[in-house]
Amino acid sequence: MPIASPSSGDGSATSSPTPPLVRIPDLNAHVGAVVTVRGWITHLRSSGKIAFLVVRDGLGTVQAVLAKADVGPAIWDRYGQLTQEASVALTGTVRADPRAPGGFELTLSDVVVTGGSPIDYPIQPKEHGVDFLMDHRHLWLRSPRQAAILRVRSEIEQAIHDFFYARNFTHVDTPILTAAIGERSGLVSTEYFDEGTAYLAQTGQLYGEAAAAALGSIYTFGPTFRAEKSKTRRHLTEFWMIEPEVAFADSADNMRLQEDLVSYLVERVLSRRRRELDELERDVSKLEQVVPPFPRIDYTDAVEMLRTRGSSIEWGADLGAEDEALLVEGADRPVFVCNYPKEAKAFYMKENPADPRTVLCNDCLAPEGYGEIIGGSQREDDYDRLLARIVAEGLPVDAYGWYLDLRRYGTFVHSGFGLGLERCVAYICGLPHVRETIPFARMMNRLRP
Amino acid sequence: MPIASPSSGDGSATSSPTPPLVRIPDLNAHVGAVVTVRGWITHLRSSGKIAFLVVRDGLGTVQAVLAKADVGPAIWDRYGQLTQEASVALTGTVRADPRAPGGFELTLSDVVVTGGSPIDYPIQPKEHGVDFLMDHRHLWLRSPRQAAILRVRSEIEQAIHDFFYARNFTHVDTPILTAAIGERSGLVSTEYFDEGTAYLAQTGQLYGEAAAAALGSIYTFGPTFRAEKSKTRRHLTEFWMIEPEVAFADSADNMRLQEDLVSYLVERVLSRRRRELDELERDVSKLEQVVPPFPRIDYTDAVEMLRTRGSSIEWGADLGAEDEALLVEGADRPVFVCNYPKEAKAFYMKENPADPRTVLCNDCLAPEGYGEIIGGSQREDDYDRLLARIVAEGLPVDAYGWYLDLRRYGTFVHSGFGLGLERCVAYICGLPHVRETIPFARMMNRLRP
Repeated sequence: MPIASPSSGDGSATSSPTPPLVRIPDLNAHVGAVVTVRGWITHLRSSGKIAFLVVRDGLGTVQAVLAKADVGPAIWDRYGQLTQEASVALTGTVRADPRAPGGFELTLSDVVVTGGSPIDYPIQPKEHGVDFLMDHRHLWLRSPRQAAILRVRSEIEQAIHDFFYARNFTHVDTPILTAAIGERSGLVSTEYFDEGTAYLAQTGQLYGEAAAAALGSIYTFGPTFRAEKSKTRRHLTEFWMIEPEVAFADSADNMRLQEDLVSYLVERVLSRRRRELDELERDVSKLEQVVPPFPRIDYTDAVEMLRTRGSSIEWGADLGAEDEALLVEGADRPVFVCNYPKEAKAFYMKENPADPRTVLCNDCLAPEGYGEIIGGSQREDDYDRLLARIVAEGLPVDAYGWYLDLRRYGTFVHSGFGLGLERCVAYICGLPHVRETIPFARMMNRLRP
Repeated sequence: MPIASPSSGDGSATSSPTPPLVRIPDLNAHVGAVVTVRGWITHLRSSGKIAFLVVRDGLGTVQAVLAKADVGPAIWDRYGQLTQEASVALTGTVRADPRAPGGFELTLSDVVVTGGSPIDYPIQPKEHGVDFLMDHRHLWLRSPRQAAILRVRSEIEQAIHDFFYARNFTHVDTPILTAAIGERSGLVSTEYFDEGTAYLAQTGQLYGEAAAAALGSIYTFGPTFRAEKSKTRRHLTEFWMIEPEVAFADSADNMRLQEDLVSYLVERVLSRRRRELDELERDVSKLEQVVPPFPRIDYTDAVEMLRTRGSSIEWGADLGAEDEALLVEGADRPVFVCNYPKEAKAFYMKENPADPRTVLCNDCLAPEGYGEIIGGSQREDDYDRLLARIVAEGLPVDAYGWYLDLRRYGTFVHSGFGLGLERCVAYICGLPHVRETIPFARMMNRLRP
């Protein structure tokens, strides 16, 4: 990509041609040449005659060497103006050096401070409290660990798009502002012109189902909102979900798609973001075991197994975080729990013909204590049964008229699931809390910056 | 992708092995074989002894031939149950037929109706009013034209991700719920726990700037909200924006990135979605001319040109839709208008050193009357000048503290832009109104379905 030529600003550059501006990851193509790198200072160290500057440009990090004898006093004096996070234009010769991080080093002929940074830069190389760091999230992002997480998140996002694109899925953006569909907990509401109250979407699934009848296989990728008054390490009030929906796919097909997707995401990060996983000190040997097929456990068997492992869970209840952790204890890859009791799950899931107390659904539980990263189901495609469920749950039938239409006009077997992006990133990065998996987390007490 | 085996349901299938379930675009790999296709009926025609069924599965359309003499009366009678949008499982032999749309045809041995469709299906092959169609958007999506638009939209989305991924940009999700940043028109608000009022994001740019300092080159891709009380063919209250932000890029770099992106998107749709452009009757010869470089016109020159063309615009005013159309009249590709007057543009744009009445910015105007699809600028990177602009506009300085921090700690030259996805889709598809470019449009009087 063409980027700006540096303007050295103070006329100190020699009259030789302006050196090319090079991004740090591209230095390997310029060994022996004079180039300019622009970025921010992360470390400084000087012996009085020779100084070492470490600079990052957002894409990479490189060490630069400034020798007083080489550059003369005018340029050497600028070393004294440098502080953490000052932005600089560094001009020098690229040297290959296997000992240097990244394999290259700059021997400097010029240093220009393009943006100073006062010594009160809030984030210092010491322990800070989480609230302090979250208050300074706009700066905290610059730290190597946070930047690595965001690069892994971005890689996972691209991998998700690539996975579905290769399978001929259509990406469908479902609406964020939606009309009332009945009382649910954690709805975020706003007034919408003369149309009454609008609610921020908690899922795009219902719209996804309509789109699947038009386009065969679709997926959504967007923000969803649940303003629960709870603080846990697995919940945000604003989080991103990926929700595929496939016409003519049943619950078994649905799980195969899930295990293929999760395995692909893990493999993709392993193969393309190893440097970031190293930065995060992730135990990659655990990730390397994530290949299909994932074990499938029927809910009823899971309850029995949990009780032998000491849980007091009763058949009929949803699994709590502790039960989930207990269930995947010792598993080397994610585990599917299938066919939960009807009462524990949403109204739109298809009744299980083999056991009508249950529905054709699954959760996908990640190992290492991460728990649910996906919830999926075959959808109820029988008009009368779906209507009965809507009525039984006390939902407003009128509001679901268009959704019922999908069962009225050419109903079809279909299935889908929701992947929680932040939980997936936390799992792959090995993070204890989802708050670092998103650039600017929104939680009960966190709306800023 | 593995998909469900059809369950013929009524025991009419022979005892031979179940034929494979095949998606319509994959029929070419099964010529001469017996397969099952599942989908929805779009057209029916019968001579009394032979019937033609056209079926779509969301991915493609195929014609199937049912001969009374071949299948016997029991299966033949099922033809009578078929209606528009009934879902069916069709089993038959794949024949290559160059006259058939798609090049293949099915000679049927079995027809199973998997989901009937009453004859009151709302969308009939006749003219419907736009309000009626929008009220039935969940079904309207199934029509060939609407499905084609959504496939082009999806292709453009993937192309955007691919474009930035190839250039080492990090995809960054900026928050939707944001704290107050001062009065602006069209803000959508909600109460946020004990944190006061939250507003739905009108842009992710300010957060994107913070991320660019951490990651070098970033882009956002998300929904934005402007609840303006206006009805035009170019505005939605909920729309998707793509906002790249690049560290160490100036306004000239910024325009090069824009023309590369727009040209890539057009070329990508031309090369991979020609069938959909044909369905939309798009004049592709117009699109084929969209290659870099795009012409650049200084705002001041544009005003002069507009006045010679009959406009009454005065220097200092923003360009209206009519001025934009006048300006690109006869252009064979998008046109950049650069360096608008300060008062016509947002507070964060960098003052133009060559003419301080103006700022370093550009709009990208699409030809054929489409007008602005991109707005971009170099950002004000001087702390004092930015602060002065915030104060002059009466914005709350406190709320911009974190944004000012980006100029306080290592300020840096940077630029970015916002591409309106729906306008871009409308332009590439050749649509007069943005409401059909998004699956479920949200407008002043439109919150449902």
